[in-house]
Amino acid sequence: MKVDVLTLFPEMFTGVFESSILGKANEKGIVSLNAINFRDFSLSKHHTVDDTPYGGGGGMVLKPEPIFAAVEHVMTSSVNPPRVILMCPQGETFTQKKAEELSKEEHIIFICGHYEGYDERIREHLVTDELSVGDYVLTGGEIPAMTVIDAVVRLLPGVLGNQMSAVTDSFSTGLLEYPHYTRPAEFRGWKVPDMLLSGHHANIEVWRRQQALKRTFTRRPDLLDKLQLTDQDKKYLRELRNNKQ
Amino acid sequence: MKVDVLTLFPEMFTGVFESSILGKANEKGIVSLNAINFRDFSLSKHHTVDDTPYGGGGGMVLKPEPIFAAVEHVMTSSVNPPRVILMCPQGETFTQKKAEELSKEEHIIFICGHYEGYDERIREHLVTDELSVGDYVLTGGEIPAMTVIDAVVRLLPGVLGNQMSAVTDSFSTGLLEYPHYTRPAEFRGWKVPDMLLSGHHANIEVWRRQQALKRTFTRRPDLLDKLQLTDQDKKYLRELRNNKQ
Repeated sequence: MKVDVLTLFPEMFTGVFESSILGKANEKGIVSLNAINFRDFSLSKHHTVDDTPYGGGGGMVLKPEPIFAAVEHVMTSSVNPPRVILMCPQGETFTQKKAEELSKEEHIIFICGHYEGYDERIREHLVTDELSVGDYVLTGGEIPAMTVIDAVVRLLPGVLGNQMSAVTDSFSTGLLEYPHYTRPAEFRGWKVPDMLLSGHHANIEVWRRQQALKRTFTRRPDLLDKLQLTDQDKKYLRELRNNKQ
Repeated sequence: MKVDVLTLFPEMFTGVFESSILGKANEKGIVSLNAINFRDFSLSKHHTVDDTPYGGGGGMVLKPEPIFAAVEHVMTSSVNPPRVILMCPQGETFTQKKAEELSKEEHIIFICGHYEGYDERIREHLVTDELSVGDYVLTGGEIPAMTVIDAVVRLLPGVLGNQMSAVTDSFSTGLLEYPHYTRPAEFRGWKVPDMLLSGHHANIEVWRRQQALKRTFTRRPDLLDKLQLTDQDKKYLRELRNNKQ
């Protein structure tokens, strides 16, 4: 997969693209991660990328020409049409399902604005997707682009080792994770639950499932509606609800 | 404000902490941003920070000792008790309201795990908040911590100039932003709407409000439920609904 990020702050991406799992995926050639300054594609004398808005008002608006030119430049490397994603608060809320969909692409281009609006023609005639990572205001699209890239690249074959896949599998149940404990068995007087030291694996499985149900029920009951629950799960949830009353 | 991020990958933060608005806020002394490797607080011979989970299963679990020691070390600089935030998918979903709440703190400590679970005793006895940035799976808490830091620091007095504040004010209406246009008035045959070139500011205001309502109605109708709408807004939304049918 090829990932090109168009930004006015390519240096923001260095640490993230070179560290840890993204860094290794990049090194192994599973993904090619590039941060490109779209200011280099401005043909104006001072490499201007923004201008005041038509109709007045505060703030600046990113001009169409440099962004169209930058996207068209990086598109030339693609055989098939790439995904062109605009990071913006007006976009579709990013989800795990979207990450899975994007992980099947050959080439993704991200456009990151920075405390400025985008000229509407970029939205209308250049991009294939508009994405938002959540309902909060950030200074730019750079950290949101990192978020999407991280979520997508970790799904590519060969990126996560088996051990890590195992951890993340627990997410794929759709429940929040059950509590984890490791050594020491007692830390400052706080003990690991006896159940986990019992060695009785079938009981531990039941305990973990119930803890995951309980945490989801308490913190994110909205997630339970989307799940296929077993009869045993439903029975346990009924007990939780009754105890709460 | 002082922000300490405890992570196994402090180098991921360099570009983000040194660039753009966060970089300037750091330079001006409005915020002090630090990324600290909590591996340095492991007292074991090989600076171990994780171990296998009690009760079996795949994946590794972050041990309590190094994280407690790191948090307690950075806490010594605080007069008042700091906020200690665990970034994790099980956490409360981060919102703009939470950003505003956190922007009033003197000292915030972030704990970032990396494709591993946290020993439950960290959750129970050390942290004040657990936050998630959205319903997607990432390789670690680092990019989510950057997200929260960016959203919080931009709210601190003196961080955003007036020009930028003006842009973000349009978010505070609770509506998605109306379309922006800048020069050229015609780009590849696509023209700026005549209204914005009319110079009639009262009409432009009405047009912009209606465009913001329309975009919110089309893309994020859930946001409309939370708003105080004027009679004029409600009339326009009724028209939109009728046209849709």
